[in-house]
Amino acid sequence: MPVNLFAPTPASLLPVKGIRLGTAEANIKKPNRKDLLVMQLSPQSTVAGVFTQNCFCAAPVIVTREHLASGKGVLALVINTGNANAGTGDLGLAAARATCMEVSRLLGCEPEQVLPFSTGVIMEVLPLERIVDGLPACVANLAADNWFDAAHAIMTTDIVAKAVSRQILLGGVTVTITGIAKGSGMIHPNMATMLGYIATDAAVAQPVLQQMLIHASDASFNCITVDGDTSTNDSLMLIASGASGAPAVTGVDSAEFAQLQAAVTEVATLLAQAIVRDGEGATKFITVRVEGGTSVAECKQIAYAVARSPLVKTAFFASDPNLGRILAAIGYAGVQLDVQYLKLYLDDVLVAEHGGRAASYREEDGQRVMQQGDITVRVVLERGTAVTTVWTCDFSYDYVKINASYRS
Amino acid sequence: MPVNLFAPTPASLLPVKGIRLGTAEANIKKPNRKDLLVMQLSPQSTVAGVFTQNCFCAAPVIVTREHLASGKGVLALVINTGNANAGTGDLGLAAARATCMEVSRLLGCEPEQVLPFSTGVIMEVLPLERIVDGLPACVANLAADNWFDAAHAIMTTDIVAKAVSRQILLGGVTVTITGIAKGSGMIHPNMATMLGYIATDAAVAQPVLQQMLIHASDASFNCITVDGDTSTNDSLMLIASGASGAPAVTGVDSAEFAQLQAAVTEVATLLAQAIVRDGEGATKFITVRVEGGTSVAECKQIAYAVARSPLVKTAFFASDPNLGRILAAIGYAGVQLDVQYLKLYLDDVLVAEHGGRAASYREEDGQRVMQQGDITVRVVLERGTAVTTVWTCDFSYDYVKINASYRS
Repeated sequence: MPVNLFAPTPASLLPVKGIRLGTAEANIKKPNRKDLLVMQLSPQSTVAGVFTQNCFCAAPVIVTREHLASGKGVLALVINTGNANAGTGDLGLAAARATCMEVSRLLGCEPEQVLPFSTGVIMEVLPLERIVDGLPACVANLAADNWFDAAHAIMTTDIVAKAVSRQILLGGVTVTITGIAKGSGMIHPNMATMLGYIATDAAVAQPVLQQMLIHASDASFNCITVDGDTSTNDSLMLIASGASGAPAVTGVDSAEFAQLQAAVTEVATLLAQAIVRDGEGATKFITVRVEGGTSVAECKQIAYAVARSPLVKTAFFASDPNLGRILAAIGYAGVQLDVQYLKLYLDDVLVAEHGGRAASYREEDGQRVMQQGDITVRVVLERGTAVTTVWTCDFSYDYVKINASYRS
Repeated sequence: MPVNLFAPTPASLLPVKGIRLGTAEANIKKPNRKDLLVMQLSPQSTVAGVFTQNCFCAAPVIVTREHLASGKGVLALVINTGNANAGTGDLGLAAARATCMEVSRLLGCEPEQVLPFSTGVIMEVLPLERIVDGLPACVANLAADNWFDAAHAIMTTDIVAKAVSRQILLGGVTVTITGIAKGSGMIHPNMATMLGYIATDAAVAQPVLQQMLIHASDASFNCITVDGDTSTNDSLMLIASGASGAPAVTGVDSAEFAQLQAAVTEVATLLAQAIVRDGEGATKFITVRVEGGTSVAECKQIAYAVARSPLVKTAFFASDPNLGRILAAIGYAGVQLDVQYLKLYLDDVLVAEHGGRAASYREEDGQRVMQQGDITVRVVLERGTAVTTVWTCDFSYDYVKINASYRS
């Protein structure tokens, strides 16, 4: 079960002016579930994206990059779950292009103004016919208050839908930011991870929007790991419809930029954490904070060694303060450390210092923290001022169960 | 259950002239099991070692390195299971030194002539008293034909003992090589992995022996992974007693060097593979072969990305040819590839080419291979001549079970 993650309600999700969403049951992998989403953008919208760095980048990611580069603007996004259209070669590219063509026909725009996204099983042919059959229903129910349905329509092994809204005042005008995301396995950051869509009715120039997205993803989706597997389809999109009437954000030096960036980053962080809280088989939400490093890079290297270790993650699953495994993971992270100066905390409990167990450490204190749903592992290097935080979950029977039976 | 791994019998293990072994039940972690081993070497023996690169290197590894560096020669090794004496600070170093002192007292040699090794739980204080109490029994039953007991005395979560013997003719004289090893979790190579001891009664000059060991470990223990976790205690030792009467191997250019190196490498490879076949929770033994790379380094990077992926490993556990996960792992390995030229085989079945599923691929062919206990994943890059092979196992419920309950 997801760890301290509350499902969104339809009322908790605010519509974003200039954005309409429509879903359908297209039977792509399983019947009787929403698995197809069309998002229609008002013509003045700007769009920014960050994508997977996987060499086996999926066909829709390739096509989305091409369409963004065409400079024709974006009027719609189309997203299917149940099939990733990855590892599908030329056939996959053709299917992604055909999907865009059908959406453009229904909405009366050009194919290059449509961005395609897919998630699901890899190396199986996209059932194009079912997608084409489902698209008219999506277009027929396009509405501004469909974010709740949209969050559900992009889920795969997710147990809980991930969606969050925020409002801020920008130049005296109320601006809304609403985001949805999906993902709970094959989660490890390399640029953006999984599918995420954040929309605002603020007006933001495209290069500024891209910079805002890079900042937000570096502080959120690029700080999580469930299983260390980087997906072929990872995409995070930031959309600014400009329909709020707030003054346009055209540079990165204004107070408005800072305000909007903070709100977008908060939405991205909550969505990213939601993905970990709903990580496949997760029973614990673990924050790994490494501080006092000589660089953020070395802090991140250590944080990820801890956050990825199957031995550390199974110990958390068992609520067993077998904390030597954390020391071992720190030790093999590839950073040359003098372990004499290192301190390891579990929440506020000092566990290790001077290369071994702290004199003050009592097993029952470790045990108490290990029972919690939310746990912070804090590694203090005491050799610099850099800090980083990474979020992960534990490794349970259910992770194996979910992934051993994923296609059945 | 171990995958196609047959337990050694006492009769299958040949004594090595000049080496005697004694075991005891010292109650280090659990009662009624052999958990302490002393290995006594004849005075003319040479010894080579490779060790963990983990910064949280265990106390016995530090002391073993010191004692080897003392140049006083090695007359005994002492190995306990049940406690790793790692992450134990100054107290751990004192305990490792005290253990050597007690062995030296019993055998009448200097403490620096004794090498200590430990394996088991990390960050708990070594129960020195129990070890000291157990040592006299080890010394009392020192015998040349105790390899079978010795292999059992170093096990932790191993289900099957790992031990193998070979004989070759060296300069007309029969030479024996017998090796034992332990390990099934926290297994990922970074120099040598886990504990391994290979002994021969050939005579080999120390620098030559060290070179032979580095070659053997690079081709064996440095090619395996169970869970990607590198231990704090990894050590692989090669001992040459010189008691066979065969002409001494003093350089690396002789036919004798090549013969002996081949035999030592074969023993090391069988032991390393045995560790994977008995990997925690393993139900499949998987060979990942990457060929046609521009360098061995890039081949290894790709092979390990596949071999470490939890998603790939759970698919093998399920016997589910969800082979897109292998493509995804190749894609995120960090090697810039043009996937058009890549071919993926499962045993002799061509699965993927031209960036997608091969036209000839039939699901039932993949399914047939996935049912096997031994499976080869072959990745052909077609951009160079470098080749590498890595061995791993699948990821099952039992891996989680074993590691969630390790200390109980």
